[in-house]
Amino acid sequence: MAKKARRVDLDHLKQAVDEIVARMDVIEDFGKAADHLEGLGDIETDRFAITVATVDGDLVSGGDTDVPFAIQSISKVFALTLALRAYGDEVWKRVGREPSGDPFNSIVDLERHKGIPRNPFINPGALVVCDIVLGRPKDHGGHADVRAFLEHHVGEKTLGRLKEIVTEDGKSAGYLNRAMANLAKAFDNLHHDVEAVMKLYVEQCAIELTCRQLALAGRYLMHDGIDGNGEDPDVDAKLSRRLNALMMTCGQYDGSGEFAYRVGLPAKSGVGGGILAIAPDTASIAVWSPTLDENGNSLLGTLALEQLTTRMGWSVFG
Amino acid sequence: MAKKARRVDLDHLKQAVDEIVARMDVIEDFGKAADHLEGLGDIETDRFAITVATVDGDLVSGGDTDVPFAIQSISKVFALTLALRAYGDEVWKRVGREPSGDPFNSIVDLERHKGIPRNPFINPGALVVCDIVLGRPKDHGGHADVRAFLEHHVGEKTLGRLKEIVTEDGKSAGYLNRAMANLAKAFDNLHHDVEAVMKLYVEQCAIELTCRQLALAGRYLMHDGIDGNGEDPDVDAKLSRRLNALMMTCGQYDGSGEFAYRVGLPAKSGVGGGILAIAPDTASIAVWSPTLDENGNSLLGTLALEQLTTRMGWSVFG
Amino acid sequence: MAKKARRVDLDHLKQAVDEIVARMDVIEDFGKAADHLEGLGDIETDRFAITVATVDGDLVSGGDTDVPFAIQSISKVFALTLALRAYGDEVWKRVGREPSGDPFNSIVDLERHKGIPRNPFINPGALVVCDIVLGRPKDHGGHADVRAFLEHHVGEKTLGRLKEIVTEDGKSAGYLNRAMANLAKAFDNLHHDVEAVMKLYVEQCAIELTCRQLALAGRYLMHDGIDGNGEDPDVDAKLSRRLNALMMTCGQYDGSGEFAYRVGLPAKSGVGGGILAIAPDTASIAVWSPTLDENGNSLLGTLALEQLTTRMGWSVFG
Amino acid sequence: MAKKARRVDLDHLKQAVDEIVARMDVIEDFGKAADHLEGLGDIETDRFAITVATVDGDLVSGGDTDVPFAIQSISKVFALTLALRAYGDEVWKRVGREPSGDPFNSIVDLERHKGIPRNPFINPGALVVCDIVLGRPKDHGGHADVRAFLEHHVGEKTLGRLKEIVTEDGKSAGYLNRAMANLAKAFDNLHHDVEAVMKLYVEQCAIELTCRQLALAGRYLMHDGIDGNGEDPDVDAKLSRRLNALMMTCGQYDGSGEFAYRVGLPAKSGVGGGILAIAPDTASIAVWSPTLDENGNSLLGTLALEQLTTRMGWSVFG
Repeated sequence: MAKKARRVDLDHLKQAVDEIVARMDVIEDFGKAADHLEGLGDIETDRFAITVATVDGDLVSGGDTDVPFAIQSISKVFALTLALRAYGDEVWKRVGREPSGDPFNSIVDLERHKGIPRNPFINPGALVVCDIVLGRPKDHGGHADVRAFLEHHVGEKTLGRLKEIVTEDGKSAGYLNRAMANLAKAFDNLHHDVEAVMKLYVEQCAIELTCRQLALAGRYLMHDGIDGNGEDPDVDAKLSRRLNALMMTCGQYDGSGEFAYRVGLPAKSGVGGGILAIAPDTASIAVWSPTLDENGNSLLGTLALEQLTTRMGWSVFG
Repeated sequence: MAKKARRVDLDHLKQAVDEIVARMDVIEDFGKAADHLEGLGDIETDRFAITVATVDGDLVSGGDTDVPFAIQSISKVFALTLALRAYGDEVWKRVGREPSGDPFNSIVDLERHKGIPRNPFINPGALVVCDIVLGRPKDHGGHADVRAFLEHHVGEKTLGRLKEIVTEDGKSAGYLNRAMANLAKAFDNLHHDVEAVMKLYVEQCAIELTCRQLALAGRYLMHDGIDGNGEDPDVDAKLSRRLNALMMTCGQYDGSGEFAYRVGLPAKSGVGGGILAIAPDTASIAVWSPTLDENGNSLLGTLALEQLTTRMGWSVFG
Repeated sequence: MAKKARRVDLDHLKQAVDEIVARMDVIEDFGKAADHLEGLGDIETDRFAITVATVDGDLVSGGDTDVPFAIQSISKVFALTLALRAYGDEVWKRVGREPSGDPFNSIVDLERHKGIPRNPFINPGALVVCDIVLGRPKDHGGHADVRAFLEHHVGEKTLGRLKEIVTEDGKSAGYLNRAMANLAKAFDNLHHDVEAVMKLYVEQCAIELTCRQLALAGRYLMHDGIDGNGEDPDVDAKLSRRLNALMMTCGQYDGSGEFAYRVGLPAKSGVGGGILAIAPDTASIAVWSPTLDENGNSLLGTLALEQLTTRMGWSVFG
Repeated sequence: MAKKARRVDLDHLKQAVDEIVARMDVIEDFGKAADHLEGLGDIETDRFAITVATVDGDLVSGGDTDVPFAIQSISKVFALTLALRAYGDEVWKRVGREPSGDPFNSIVDLERHKGIPRNPFINPGALVVCDIVLGRPKDHGGHADVRAFLEHHVGEKTLGRLKEIVTEDGKSAGYLNRAMANLAKAFDNLHHDVEAVMKLYVEQCAIELTCRQLALAGRYLMHDGIDGNGEDPDVDAKLSRRLNALMMTCGQYDGSGEFAYRVGLPAKSGVGGGILAIAPDTASIAVWSPTLDENGNSLLGTLALEQLTTRMGWSVFG
């Protein structure tokens, strides 16, 4: 255990997780699934899972913790990690670090800021990040892509893939992303072919993880040299501190302010119902429940994180 | 000559055109060429041409009246004519009729109005009109496309084509149009493939006409049965009255208000430096001069039309 | 009768007006009154009036032609006339001439264009015009205000005034106008006190005219020296030509494009249900009917003008 | 010392502060003063002060720590505290909790969201909060206003006041705020007179504190019952946790994302050059230096906080 890590009371944590799972079992029918993502098929809206990976190496889980789900926008954190490891703060010449004040799929900001997306977690920002990842030199030494990165951090080679993603191509969300990619390209902020960038983007969104796998994957964001994978711990600490800052201000789309207010942890959500939240120096937390709120964040997942952070005193705001 | 046509004093008109051409010869260096249209190559910024086709069938010309230029956005009037002839006011379910208040290439309005372009003369509106033209039934009986329409109205089969337009495809303007087409498609207001619509759009923009040909092509917009091509004159009169209204309020991009204020005629400009202006029941006027003002309209062309309309008393506003 | 005036077939006109009035009598319940203008009280939604003042000096009327109504935004045309007579094109340094693409009461454009309203007929533009009128030198020789201007042009000293306008002060519309006046002042484009400008603005909006009076007031906009009031006819012709251009592109709020398409005359509407329309060189037309469409323009008034212009062939678009 | 408080290594802190002050002494000329705030007069751009109030009750200071400066927008945190103590989450019915993505003085968002400001730290949000504070019942039992609140928390009755603030009234910023207040009132989200709300707003912005006083005033935001002023510690902890969340996501105007990225503490800046930053459970930190960056935040103040948080390991992000 490293110098800044806060020891976690494991019994307290297990009790908290058990109670949260029990409470979620009796909550149903909390909204609507992400019906704009046609590839998701029928969804049982009452499923719930949680896994907490502590700084001490313990795993505490509850619910449908072995059901895989598409990580969707959570992949944007991992793609940004690849870009920052390769180029550092050079990345910020092509994408901003400010909350957008507009929905995640808004094209307005991109035009107003002349092709520079407001942050790497709205769709146009993620597309530019994918373009940066594609542009790394052949011998960059990093992971080939988000899938390779995740296989390394989870420690498994058999990560799943959303089957129906191929059909998403012909649907509304695909065209909207293509519109944003073309607009970025019109401003000379996309260097590869639109379709090549789209392919990388769709591929990483389609990766399926279980809650257990996602919590393992997020351990490096506790930034205390936890992952033991040989990266430079000092570089890594600084990197994850910055990633956490971005997740705090921009990670929950247009609901980031409310999420910070209620939960108080840096986190990134995906429309597949997953959320990865980080208690710095303490824990990597993954929750999953498919029903989304009006901002596109998991309804039960957010509620569970609010309860967990209150129970454990893990809010970064005291 | 039809019932509403106003007889034109031909000597007066010839004198006015001669004086305007003489004046334009001494005006040079009035701005910058449309350097965002890479296909246009080097431009001699002091070229000028004018042709007036009167309701009586006379043609009065001056300047470089046989130099072909790409009609670019002027083609939007002809494409809209094809759409309105096929579907009438049904067209307005998919595109609006209001000035946009934003530059011609703005994507903001398109998002704000959920995929319905503000009018058929901004780029997203023209793309939707192309999509409508593509969707006409096989046996619609109208002209196959804008080129066929123009061949018919000009009475020639040898209209030119901008050679370098193929290269425009890879440039900024092409990506911006693709962004708008994809955004319209995301809102389900584009029914054909983006590339098929883009192809039709680029093809019609690349048509080259001389001033003489353009003035001939615009005669049907005087709407007095002038073209003698067998269309129903009543339908045609109503149609051209409406096209003139649209050209008046939306025809000069974000400079339509100033154009109406100074010139007082319905008109449509193109970034190739051409303008087609209509004096209802009186004349079809084509001007060309490549240097553009800050709104993308021909600088000398606008000035010439202002002088012509003042000299001839042709402003529709009295 | 002046040189450009078009003789009007008076019998044809009388027949057209009679038929329009008869048709309006059977149309009812066409929408909702301007319920955001609390001062207007209960409105009988089926009232209708029309007066046409021809270039030959004839008056043809029908319906409730002696019922006074508040001219509201129609006053913006007269206020702009005062400003243009005093300062000419200098006015355009402080207000634009382009359609706004946003509702009449939008504050967005004013911020985007740094305190320069898009045109003189949206509310912020009218407030800046009032500020210009207030700033005329003591000895400017023009009319003191819109009321004096109208008394002169109507030839009566007993024009009415909307009684309840004092209460409007405390209502939503008043605060919105104050917001826009303060924003213009923040950009240094309002030189007098906000309340002084507001007072002039509210006073001119509250002037009550009958249809007959409004048609008389608008005669100077036919610009053929009709009003016989000693102004320089050449200056006046140029001025009214320009005012007509502005009314055509910007006169019906966010419905200007559709109005041009359907009616084809320059016109200005007010939320009191009045519309002043000009057939250049031909006629000054006033209609009134209190029920408004979704853009804030008189529903029956617009319909009547569409029928009149079709019957008489008065569309400026042929 | 309360249960969650983190003990601070005082020697380490003193050394860090000394080094930061020494470094700031050699940095000069870092930008431009807030020249849009005319009341501020001539500014010596190289002044710098810092005070850290630890959870243990220690005070560590350096630089011009006894020079008073206007707290300006930092007062928005204290006004919000008064509102939340009186009404709790009811406050969020009238103001949002999301970053705005637009500059602090933008009026666009206010119109788009129909009079509901995006958050309480942009100007329209602060005006609505002042309106809420004004509306508290006579016997609410809380502090009369921000001045009384600060006198209580600082423990002094002689807080200063910016002298020239009366002149700000007639300047650009005053009109802009009046525009926003009137717009909120047009949407019925301001219940008191605009001038009454403006007066409260201007008064609280004009309060002058030294760095020492500001650090003392911020202690309650460490939320560990530090202030010893008899408020309910549980309520207070929850309150300050939420205030910290808001400061993190919205506290530095349009530079909040970058501030979180670089500094990693919840904080609120003012155009007077002050910043109040909170290390939860650990320290209340005040810095002051008048030169501002392009987002309106203290240039040297931000730099100092970045160095302090790095040295002390106080970033909430690990």
